[in-house]
Amino acid sequence: MNQIIKTSDPAVKALCPVAESEGIATVFDRYQAQQPQCGFGSLGLCCRICWKGPCRVDPFGDGPQAGICGATRDTIVARNVTRMMAAGAAAHSEHARHVALAMQRVGKGQLPAYQIRDPQKLFRIAEKLGIETQDRDMLDVAYDVASKSLEDFQNQDHHKGCNWISSSLPQKRLNRLKKLGVLPHNIDATVAQIMARTHIGCDAEPQNVFLGGIRGALADFNGMALGTELSDVMFGTPSPIVTEANIGVIDKDAVNIAVNGHNPLLSEVICDVAREMNDIAKAAGAAKGINIVGICCTGNEVMMRHGIPLATNYLSQEMAILTGALDAMVLDVQCIMPSLPQIGNCFHTEVITTSDENRIQSARHVSFHEENAVENAREVIQYAINAYTRRDPKKINIPAIKQTAVVGFSAEAIVAALAKLDADDPLKPLVDNIVNGNIQGVALFAGCNSTQTTQDESYQVIAKILAANNILLLATGCGAGAFAKHGLMTPEATKQYAGESLKAVLTAIGEAAGLNGPLPLVLHMGSCVDNSRAVAVATALANRLGVDLSDLPVVASAPEAMSEKAIAIASWGVAIGLPTHLGTMPQVTGSDAVTALMQQGAKELFGGYFLIETDPKVAGNKLVDVIKQKRQGLGI
Amino acid sequence: MNQIIKTSDPAVKALCPVAESEGIATVFDRYQAQQPQCGFGSLGLCCRICWKGPCRVDPFGDGPQAGICGATRDTIVARNVTRMMAAGAAAHSEHARHVALAMQRVGKGQLPAYQIRDPQKLFRIAEKLGIETQDRDMLDVAYDVASKSLEDFQNQDHHKGCNWISSSLPQKRLNRLKKLGVLPHNIDATVAQIMARTHIGCDAEPQNVFLGGIRGALADFNGMALGTELSDVMFGTPSPIVTEANIGVIDKDAVNIAVNGHNPLLSEVICDVAREMNDIAKAAGAAKGINIVGICCTGNEVMMRHGIPLATNYLSQEMAILTGALDAMVLDVQCIMPSLPQIGNCFHTEVITTSDENRIQSARHVSFHEENAVENAREVIQYAINAYTRRDPKKINIPAIKQTAVVGFSAEAIVAALAKLDADDPLKPLVDNIVNGNIQGVALFAGCNSTQTTQDESYQVIAKILAANNILLLATGCGAGAFAKHGLMTPEATKQYAGESLKAVLTAIGEAAGLNGPLPLVLHMGSCVDNSRAVAVATALANRLGVDLSDLPVVASAPEAMSEKAIAIASWGVAIGLPTHLGTMPQVTGSDAVTALMQQGAKELFGGYFLIETDPKVAGNKLVDVIKQKRQGLGI
Repeated sequence: MNQIIKTSDPAVKALCPVAESEGIATVFDRYQAQQPQCGFGSLGLCCRICWKGPCRVDPFGDGPQAGICGATRDTIVARNVTRMMAAGAAAHSEHARHVALAMQRVGKGQLPAYQIRDPQKLFRIAEKLGIETQDRDMLDVAYDVASKSLEDFQNQDHHKGCNWISSSLPQKRLNRLKKLGVLPHNIDATVAQIMARTHIGCDAEPQNVFLGGIRGALADFNGMALGTELSDVMFGTPSPIVTEANIGVIDKDAVNIAVNGHNPLLSEVICDVAREMNDIAKAAGAAKGINIVGICCTGNEVMMRHGIPLATNYLSQEMAILTGALDAMVLDVQCIMPSLPQIGNCFHTEVITTSDENRIQSARHVSFHEENAVENAREVIQYAINAYTRRDPKKINIPAIKQTAVVGFSAEAIVAALAKLDADDPLKPLVDNIVNGNIQGVALFAGCNSTQTTQDESYQVIAKILAANNILLLATGCGAGAFAKHGLMTPEATKQYAGESLKAVLTAIGEAAGLNGPLPLVLHMGSCVDNSRAVAVATALANRLGVDLSDLPVVASAPEAMSEKAIAIASWGVAIGLPTHLGTMPQVTGSDAVTALMQQGAKELFGGYFLIETDPKVAGNKLVDVIKQKRQGLGI
Repeated sequence: MNQIIKTSDPAVKALCPVAESEGIATVFDRYQAQQPQCGFGSLGLCCRICWKGPCRVDPFGDGPQAGICGATRDTIVARNVTRMMAAGAAAHSEHARHVALAMQRVGKGQLPAYQIRDPQKLFRIAEKLGIETQDRDMLDVAYDVASKSLEDFQNQDHHKGCNWISSSLPQKRLNRLKKLGVLPHNIDATVAQIMARTHIGCDAEPQNVFLGGIRGALADFNGMALGTELSDVMFGTPSPIVTEANIGVIDKDAVNIAVNGHNPLLSEVICDVAREMNDIAKAAGAAKGINIVGICCTGNEVMMRHGIPLATNYLSQEMAILTGALDAMVLDVQCIMPSLPQIGNCFHTEVITTSDENRIQSARHVSFHEENAVENAREVIQYAINAYTRRDPKKINIPAIKQTAVVGFSAEAIVAALAKLDADDPLKPLVDNIVNGNIQGVALFAGCNSTQTTQDESYQVIAKILAANNILLLATGCGAGAFAKHGLMTPEATKQYAGESLKAVLTAIGEAAGLNGPLPLVLHMGSCVDNSRAVAVATALANRLGVDLSDLPVVASAPEAMSEKAIAIASWGVAIGLPTHLGTMPQVTGSDAVTALMQQGAKELFGGYFLIETDPKVAGNKLVDVIKQKRQGLGI
């Protein structure tokens, strides 16, 4: 196949020829094979909601202007994008529920493989949720915190908002959202209600449909906040740690195990058990024992908490197998390419699914359950060690491409670093520097990789423009992976790309925090479920300044938004008031009404809005302008 | 437009020329305008689950064989159909939740517009659900029954099945479903989990995905059972009543108000309030006062309980406005064509949406809330009366087409009729007649109208074949509407079409029940949410015979299945063991694996299976054969 590899990642460029010579199709080949993609679908004008269809509205106005039931282009587009928000909320929240259910059992002493690693955070959360903490046993509080979190999946009173969202956003924002009727009362019910109201013959008014979707997106935020915070309680709150990223972290002298997916419940235990099993790996011939590497957001989770190196992000997950030195890839949930077992079969690699609800044909399956976590971890590690002994040395090809990455910037870690400058009032240095303009604003990079763009490129282009304009950069998910792989999570990058005043602030904080240099140019805040960390920082700033989130010089950017989760994240970003850049064309442009609603309409409703711009340079400059406007609005 | 009107309904044939002469497009025109429909979508081979897509798998094997992420045709098809099951479950269950929440408030004395109209049924349900009834106040029991029903939306223990399904199916069937891991523990959570597991990069193994969908379909059954039974408690359990069906029930001398949708909460109150407001209508010039007519399943609900005539079923809902004599159409939820307000604007008709989550552009909106039910009902009726005064007499054109329909056959009504033959053991006459072969078996007709077929035709063709072969016929939803409109819910139809032994049994029961003739050829069991009524009868039979549902000579048929709700119904039909006919081609045939799983695969897993046959004559004969096989299996 005559490949056009749309990536800026040198490791991918190095490995694609391997795929070609082995006759293996990768995501880049499959992308090419799908060209040209359906124009109706790309515009959001295809409806497959009932079996009278499929129906398609002619974008040019010549052919049919409504589906068989009478749904117009606006209705069809609104329903399609709204269902995506619901699915995103469902995915993040299922992960969150899993963590909450596990924590409930930890509270009952039923899961010996798990602990409460951050009791201080547990008690802080308990107080935030209104749970009594005085003189109480830690495990009892953990049980209550988990139960109160699960209420957000159970409450049937439509007038009572979810516990997490109610305690995580500024009151001004909550009031605005409540007035619009978009505050969720229950995550699951909101997802189900979106599916119901988008059923054939139900909600057809595009703004009403879309606002229903926004309620789902805010349910996504709720699930994400509780998932992130409870994970910190159970697995530890990240703090700065130095590690490496990109495919060169795979070590030919070790048993290499990649953890790929999103949910840390198994990967955390794998990290623990790997230490115990190191000698078994050595006995099998791997001089350096076991080398755990991360992919996608499970990678981000263990990278943030344990400094586990990140092999790669979403779009290049297949490349890890192509090195010929990956002995096992352990999969949990979400954003896992179903092509992996097939590629694994071309090598010695064990591709192992672990969630009973997330299986792939021809993958090995180890049914993971928390009560058997240690045994499950042992089993998958043993498969990796066995596979190591079957390696074909002729097939080993690990490009020596990797970058240092300083990661682990949870909200708490950022506050702790700031506290080195002002122990009594840690937020003061940040607020002062924003007010005096040394830091012009804050940008959060989130979201996916997509074949619609050149992998990782827009992240870098936009980030460099913003950094030069003294904007503080945060990142999560595959965005964070992109920055880590390309060396932008280093003090050196700060020196090279940050504007002078930003550089000075990052250096002052970094030095005070004992990092012997500036903070990295981009602060890694975690996996895609961790976007709530950035909201925690923004909420603290807004509360401190007595303003709403939409008043702050804070923007979000999803240059490669692709998954339904990313659509949910971007949508709640807008709903909580953030101007939110999308670098891929959202599949809504078949409807002028929905497209306008996402831009000017959203601005009026929420203060936040979608900023759609596929050219990264233009996008970067537009985001700088937005920050300037926000500063003007605040009179700073 | 050169119309090809695919209908067997003479009223539709009479009114389509009106639409043509007025330049109004109806569903039949929009169907034609959509030809040819997308082949990828029709085969289930189009994936729009992420924004890397749309992706399409080449059905002929020449073009791409996987989506960009690597999802195969089998994965794509399985995910698409599974999400439809989830959406169907969500829609039915949202309706059910609405009723349960209302009943909870009735129990607290907070909703004076509503009563407990069937306290005996309330107490029967309470006992079935394990709720104490001895010496308890009716309203307290109602509150507890509603709360226990709402638990089925709240329970987070994956090992505990939903309360309703656990108490509504034979134990043998429950055991089989439990072993397959498809018993839902919580309706909302099951819907959300399906959305999560079908997110990009999640479940890719087609059978696993499909079984996840089956869990959603069984959640649909659970929602449906509780929605139906609680509606009976609040609005009365249907019993036989004589009424009329088809467009001729619209009366030019009355203020005609059509209630259209699915949820009886408002339409019940409209029926009550209309009686009070009759004189206002007369004063406005309508000699016969107010004439409420039904459309679609809200029509079935009020037809079953109050003998309100049915104007028409789904596909022809636009026709009611074309008569020029419909003064208002009051919409609640589901299967409502978004084209209605536009058509209403061509006449004097008020098209009124009432659910805040189900609006349509340019419709009048009256925000319905149970606490204001009477005021809401008065408001919509007043709009109708006002509209009546604006009628254009030149536009009135009501085809004099209607049929008598004997309806109201709830499970309780059937047992009551049988009790006239054997008061001590009402099931005995039915069991005896099935065993001795006078009744060869039972067929349930369910589901929609679809433009993929000729409206209502297959229902009639299949029913006549089955009746001639002495198979007892039940019907719900738009199927029931079709039979009512075409005169097959009459004693005369029994005389004309039933086989001799069936005719004798129906006559004996009808005479004993004081109907002065045979039961109608097809027994109207209610709206599409009422399919659980047929399961109640089948479960009673299975328990009586000590067999599983899959052993019974019982089949289901959905000759025009179209909506996601219908897909959910058909899927739980299969899962509880029923051979279930689909008369439209399901959009799964792009995957041999999924197509096989729905047929032979399902047969092995569940006993039930999908019988796919678009030719109604062939389908009828195949269903007769299935009944014969089942009888052989039982040795009768």
